[in-house]
Amino acid sequence: MNVTELRCIKCGRRYHPDRGNLVCDDCGRQGLLEVEYDYRNIARNHDRDALAAVGDRTMWRYAAFLPVTPGDRRSGLLVGGTPLYRAQRLGQAVGLTDLWVKDEGLNPTGSLKDRASALAVARALESGYNTVACASTGNAASSLAGNAANRGLRSVIFVPSRAPAGKVAQLLIYGATVISVDGTYEQTFALSETAIEERGWYNRNAAINPYLVEGKKTVALELAEQFGWKAPDWVALSVGDGCTLAGVYKGFYDLVQVGWVDRIPRLLGVQAEGCAPIYRALATGRLEPAPENTLADSIAVGKPRNPDKAIQAVKNSQGSMVTVSDEDILDAMRLLGRTTGIFGEPAGVAGLAGLRKAVASGLVGSGELAVVIMTGNGLKDIASGTRAATPPVRIPPDPEALEGVLGAAGLG
Amino acid sequence: MNVTELRCIKCGRRYHPDRGNLVCDDCGRQGLLEVEYDYRNIARNHDRDALAAVGDRTMWRYAAFLPVTPGDRRSGLLVGGTPLYRAQRLGQAVGLTDLWVKDEGLNPTGSLKDRASALAVARALESGYNTVACASTGNAASSLAGNAANRGLRSVIFVPSRAPAGKVAQLLIYGATVISVDGTYEQTFALSETAIEERGWYNRNAAINPYLVEGKKTVALELAEQFGWKAPDWVALSVGDGCTLAGVYKGFYDLVQVGWVDRIPRLLGVQAEGCAPIYRALATGRLEPAPENTLADSIAVGKPRNPDKAIQAVKNSQGSMVTVSDEDILDAMRLLGRTTGIFGEPAGVAGLAGLRKAVASGLVGSGELAVVIMTGNGLKDIASGTRAATPPVRIPPDPEALEGVLGAAGLG
Repeated sequence: MNVTELRCIKCGRRYHPDRGNLVCDDCGRQGLLEVEYDYRNIARNHDRDALAAVGDRTMWRYAAFLPVTPGDRRSGLLVGGTPLYRAQRLGQAVGLTDLWVKDEGLNPTGSLKDRASALAVARALESGYNTVACASTGNAASSLAGNAANRGLRSVIFVPSRAPAGKVAQLLIYGATVISVDGTYEQTFALSETAIEERGWYNRNAAINPYLVEGKKTVALELAEQFGWKAPDWVALSVGDGCTLAGVYKGFYDLVQVGWVDRIPRLLGVQAEGCAPIYRALATGRLEPAPENTLADSIAVGKPRNPDKAIQAVKNSQGSMVTVSDEDILDAMRLLGRTTGIFGEPAGVAGLAGLRKAVASGLVGSGELAVVIMTGNGLKDIASGTRAATPPVRIPPDPEALEGVLGAAGLG
Repeated sequence: MNVTELRCIKCGRRYHPDRGNLVCDDCGRQGLLEVEYDYRNIARNHDRDALAAVGDRTMWRYAAFLPVTPGDRRSGLLVGGTPLYRAQRLGQAVGLTDLWVKDEGLNPTGSLKDRASALAVARALESGYNTVACASTGNAASSLAGNAANRGLRSVIFVPSRAPAGKVAQLLIYGATVISVDGTYEQTFALSETAIEERGWYNRNAAINPYLVEGKKTVALELAEQFGWKAPDWVALSVGDGCTLAGVYKGFYDLVQVGWVDRIPRLLGVQAEGCAPIYRALATGRLEPAPENTLADSIAVGKPRNPDKAIQAVKNSQGSMVTVSDEDILDAMRLLGRTTGIFGEPAGVAGLAGLRKAVASGLVGSGELAVVIMTGNGLKDIASGTRAATPPVRIPPDPEALEGVLGAAGLG
């Protein structure tokens, strides 16, 4: 393991990884920790070109950059190794000549969050826990439940009761104990923290656990490798609590440190108009709670626990943030589907909606190489898919009725 | 391309592949064609061990066994390369020491049918079609729509109006023209055949198009390679119109012909009790229409168009068939989820339900190596997932309420 220490992003105090801290002793929950690596050691002992011969296509192929000791702890669900598609017709539609889509919806439980949860489960096993827990609007939860089930760990999941049926059904099928809270995400989170602390469960809350960003960063490592160790100009993705954005930054940061890529791409963070506290904090310097008015439930986080890493990621990458309306999101869902055959959930396609806006405003140039990270599978939220689509034509089983319908559809 | 000819399974008449026949000129729709290969040529020019060095993990890595000419026609969605998991706790639960699960729900549109649709789209492009069409209870349709959208082909899909919302939303997002027919699958199919013939679209109906089995067989080629070119003792999967079962047989048959594996595994075909015409035809020798009374909509095919290939596959492999109740299916869904972290749709887990029954009856021995092909993602049919699961506990955001709930769940 190449981890050297954990460093508090508030006060800078350093902790040995074996101490088991999740947050800083001095700063408490404001003192998020950052995982630091011995980059010189990684650069000396690992060769990016040697990776081509590694048969393991999962996130664990990047073990040199991960906070886990070798061993069978990685033998769970096959997370990562997701497709990267060049999307020419989509590019034409949004005004880009070199647009790519990373389909994270094909992770085992259907979202990018599998990367963080697989890492959490590996660490929980290493430390001898038998129960893992989190509060989540959906994907963090389903990914934790699925990855835990695969390794025989018990999971306890706190969800706000507004979470879509699909995501909750998934949790239940994975055998999780689900606590559905009639309240905001905020209240749900508070309840989970109390229970986790009292009972000594492994804490997978992204706003607390410093290792989750390390799992999420593997999407960036994978992107870099898929592009032949070249950083794209822009990486666009949706932002809820900001941890995924922070993870993408960290992945490219690691690669720059060891000299495997020469720069960090500009990050375009996309929030929903109806819930954009990090977008506003970036503009004003002040974080204020926001309403949670968007159909993109996976990024409806009105009071992000710790947006600092995300804001730093945008600033340090010379990136930017934009907001998009729910209509923009539904438009992006249709556009992505019909041009690429990829069905994304609202938060999954919000990155595309934002990129489209950024191209229209001139922020992103038409010739720049841009990647959209499509973070979650559209099957997770059928209600939104149905809302985005024009309902099907319904006819009796009769050739004449058919004739009329096909004519109307331009297929006469 | 190693295809030599197409042979009618009724009368034996042979056709040159360039003639473009989908069925036999003499026998009509009863005359399904079988695609034949020059196995000697394949054996001479290809080496199974050389495949290990092939970077392409999709179904196209087996191009030597596929009816497509080389070229960019394969550059669509990344189909195949799905995970094969050893499932130890699941094995214990059903009484098997060596049980494996192939998760086909991780194909791009969420089911094994992507393999057939990707092949259909490649062939349609080769032949210059711009519209593809089919009638389907769901997965054939969504996979066709998704794979067509990715390659810029237009798709027209005929679905019975009972198809679950998730599957229809998927079609619409992919930009398909969807014709929702208020009738049985049978009536829907008839309507699609009329329209396809009149308009000269590419026909992706599995009961007609001989190439679809060739796409489906890649799951068997992949299984064989994942097992190190060893055939398992049993392969269990659900059966609707029988084409997938026929495909699995064909894949192992091909491999035996070229000497890459030494035998064909015994195939366990599983139908729902409420819709088991092929099961009955195997037992009685007579195919009779059956009702379509099962929640496993993907295998609710009351009048399979051509069960001959499937029945031959079971007989020739010394296999067997069983039926399972909807309760068995929901049980299997829960069991698979909580022991492996895989969420399958009802038809997807029916194979497991049937295998469990076959182990209990002594048909499958506890020490035999068995594989379940999990054919479709559970997110496609949330209603069934919700029905299978115990509803979540719903509480106010209050620690005392939580206390009670955790106590009741054995987490006090």
